[in-house]
Amino acid sequence: SKKFGVPCHVVDVKSTNSFKVGQKFELSDVLEAQQFDRDTLSAIFEVAREMEKVEKNSPGSQILKGYLMATLFYEPSTRTRLSFESAMKRLGGEVLTTENAREFSSAAKGETLEDSIRTVEGYSDIIVMRHFESGAAKRAAATAEIPIINAGDGPGQHPTQALLDVYTIDREVGKLDGINVALVGDLANGRTVRSLAYLLAKYDDVKIYFVSPDVVRMKDDIKEYLTSKNIKWEESADLVEVASKCDVVYQTRIQRERFGERTDLYEEARGKYIVNQNV
Amino acid sequence: SKKFGVPCHVVDVKSTNSFKVGQKFELSDVLEAQQFDRDTLSAIFEVAREMEKVEKNSPGSQILKGYLMATLFYEPSTRTRLSFESAMKRLGGEVLTTENAREFSSAAKGETLEDSIRTVEGYSDIIVMRHFESGAAKRAAATAEIPIINAGDGPGQHPTQALLDVYTIDREVGKLDGINVALVGDLANGRTVRSLAYLLAKYDDVKIYFVSPDVVRMKDDIKEYLTSKNIKWEESADLVEVASKCDVVYQTRIQRERFGERTDLYEEARGKYIVNQNV
Amino acid sequence: SKKFGVPCHVVDVKSTNSFKVGQKFELSDVLEAQQFDRDTLSAIFEVAREMEKVEKNSPGSQILKGYLMATLFYEPSTRTRLSFESAMKRLGGEVLTTENAREFSSAAKGETLEDSIRTVEGYSDIIVMRHFESGAAKRAAATAEIPIINAGDGPGQHPTQALLDVYTIDREVGKLDGINVALVGDLANGRTVRSLAYLLAKYDDVKIYFVSPDVVRMKDDIKEYLTSKNIKWEESADLVEVASKCDVVYQTRIQRERFGERTDLYEEARGKYIVNQNV
Repeated sequence: SKKFGVPCHVVDVKSTNSFKVGQKFELSDVLEAQQFDRDTLSAIFEVAREMEKVEKNSPGSQILKGYLMATLFYEPSTRTRLSFESAMKRLGGEVLTTENAREFSSAAKGETLEDSIRTVEGYSDIIVMRHFESGAAKRAAATAEIPIINAGDGPGQHPTQALLDVYTIDREVGKLDGINVALVGDLANGRTVRSLAYLLAKYDDVKIYFVSPDVVRMKDDIKEYLTSKNIKWEESADLVEVASKCDVVYQTRIQRERFGERTDLYEEARGKYIVNQNV
Repeated sequence: SKKFGVPCHVVDVKSTNSFKVGQKFELSDVLEAQQFDRDTLSAIFEVAREMEKVEKNSPGSQILKGYLMATLFYEPSTRTRLSFESAMKRLGGEVLTTENAREFSSAAKGETLEDSIRTVEGYSDIIVMRHFESGAAKRAAATAEIPIINAGDGPGQHPTQALLDVYTIDREVGKLDGINVALVGDLANGRTVRSLAYLLAKYDDVKIYFVSPDVVRMKDDIKEYLTSKNIKWEESADLVEVASKCDVVYQTRIQRERFGERTDLYEEARGKYIVNQNV
Repeated sequence: SKKFGVPCHVVDVKSTNSFKVGQKFELSDVLEAQQFDRDTLSAIFEVAREMEKVEKNSPGSQILKGYLMATLFYEPSTRTRLSFESAMKRLGGEVLTTENAREFSSAAKGETLEDSIRTVEGYSDIIVMRHFESGAAKRAAATAEIPIINAGDGPGQHPTQALLDVYTIDREVGKLDGINVALVGDLANGRTVRSLAYLLAKYDDVKIYFVSPDVVRMKDDIKEYLTSKNIKWEESADLVEVASKCDVVYQTRIQRERFGERTDLYEEARGKYIVNQNV
């Protein structure tokens, strides 16, 4: 399976209506949100809209027949893992799965990530990977001959979640240019808000409001990226006031597991911003 | 997928010989043994007898092609989980699986059961659920738009196991009306004996003998249910004497994990009733 | 499914080109390397060579359609488990899987291995088993009516790994008779080197060099077996000198998990023999 450089054109717009059984997508690694340009995002969303119409037991529902996806999860996540596996099986493909590679695999025996990837790529056509370390998906992709999809790498990114978020915003709000979005909650450790901010930066006249407890404010790398792309952003402590100006309020959980032993900081951060009828 | 109220007619007797690929069963939730009436039980057993004849790689072996079952196990149980998954795959269906949802999923991150169900029902056509709390399956079914099968909910019920038990009794003894059954072992915590007692109560002239250590006697709710349905029952300490009067002796394990820290009670209960050649 | 005694002829050479969908292999248990004779090994390798040519979505890629394999892993091993599952799914078969049967199954509730096997054989057509105890696969096979494949039993054997090793040696070196092989590392606990030694003993004029730290030298049973089969062997402490005389250097990991609490012995054994450019 041929790989492309990053950033890649995942799907050719012209081919979205010509899926054939047994045809390999020319799909590169999906590692971080900033790899996608605006045209690629449009193409992906057009494919997604086509896929929504695929009916059970129709020929279209078998376009991945003969393909095998490995879900290599070093950090358990039933929701994310099952979403990929469901998609694969709904389209006729098959799945090799590991719920907890960190504990159950040769990782526990001291094998490097690179060695694990070299083994698993011999078994499958694509690897969907969740890892506890930022940058792990990139390391895997540098080793693998087959495509790697980053399904969350520690506090790094979660690009496919962000793709889904932007697709949902487009469908519900009806536009992406010119929207105002509030990102609320743990913005320091939330990898989905990081990936989402990168994607929103592809559109025109977007304004992003960061609403978070002080201890988990959005990190500078994202702020600098947005500024460099001429995306307006603002930090605020007043969720109700911000919400009145936004098309979308995006709430992310304060994640206890990212605080480690600093339970004092966790206690300080949690329960501060609650989306209710006032918002 | 349309849902029916409880109790439901799971299968229409007349249709047992007309399975078609891609046809959805009108199957409601399976939550507790008392939801089945006698006619429904007969219909299910007739289907089961038909299914026993289904041959590998025959068209009948593909009646679930295109359907996806999620096994959501909050309490690990290889035997029960694999039995459902084997049935699904033998009939051409596919499976999404989680061995230990309690530890590996967002449940560990504080997500409610209801939220987990709302996510997983988006991935699958039916959910088979094992949970550590009594009543969990009912809560799931109240939320879900797709069918829920209770594969054991803490000390609550295990209705599909009881269906299998009654089917086996019918096949081996040749009748269900008029049989004498000894239920032996941990009757307080054994969810299978509770579900089995509810099912046996659907038949005429059944007599049930409860044989258990004092600390794990059958609970009053089951005794009262049986009395209200005119089912004769009796408690006894003498397994050998009871066995001589019964068509079936049903032995359930003294389950250490249900005693928690009361190891003294566990020690008192175990090894008291052993089925051997005397019985 | 009919079973043969051990040693068995797993595949008839003449039939390697006549696989049909739905045809059952007459495959016995695979329990230990010494069960294979030289002709059987040749037959297996010929099938393997044929299988390397099977193309995705070709009829040959569906020869296991309708068959169900259970991977019953009492000791987690993502690499070994996924390799079997990949093979099965690449050939159209289906899989029931348990990543950690020791912790998650009724084994934790005191069920015997024999009882577990009797349950799982009702769900599947073949069982691939990894266990933490030497001899577990043999015990399973003595109970099961369906074939058992030993995918590693504690410090016992790992016959399918050894089959792959010998197949690879044959392909890379171009011969098996007359080769010199260095087995390096933990030879006392390494089940793959044990199985590999048994297989190499089937060939003529083979010489085996054992290179290991003192605390984990090759056990006497293997040495005696080799001597009884007229296979020359020699122990050495000098990896560089041995390597210069060998066609193959086979390195096995010093496995911390086999030392239990003897971390002193583990520290003594590790890092002693390193394959680098000098070798």
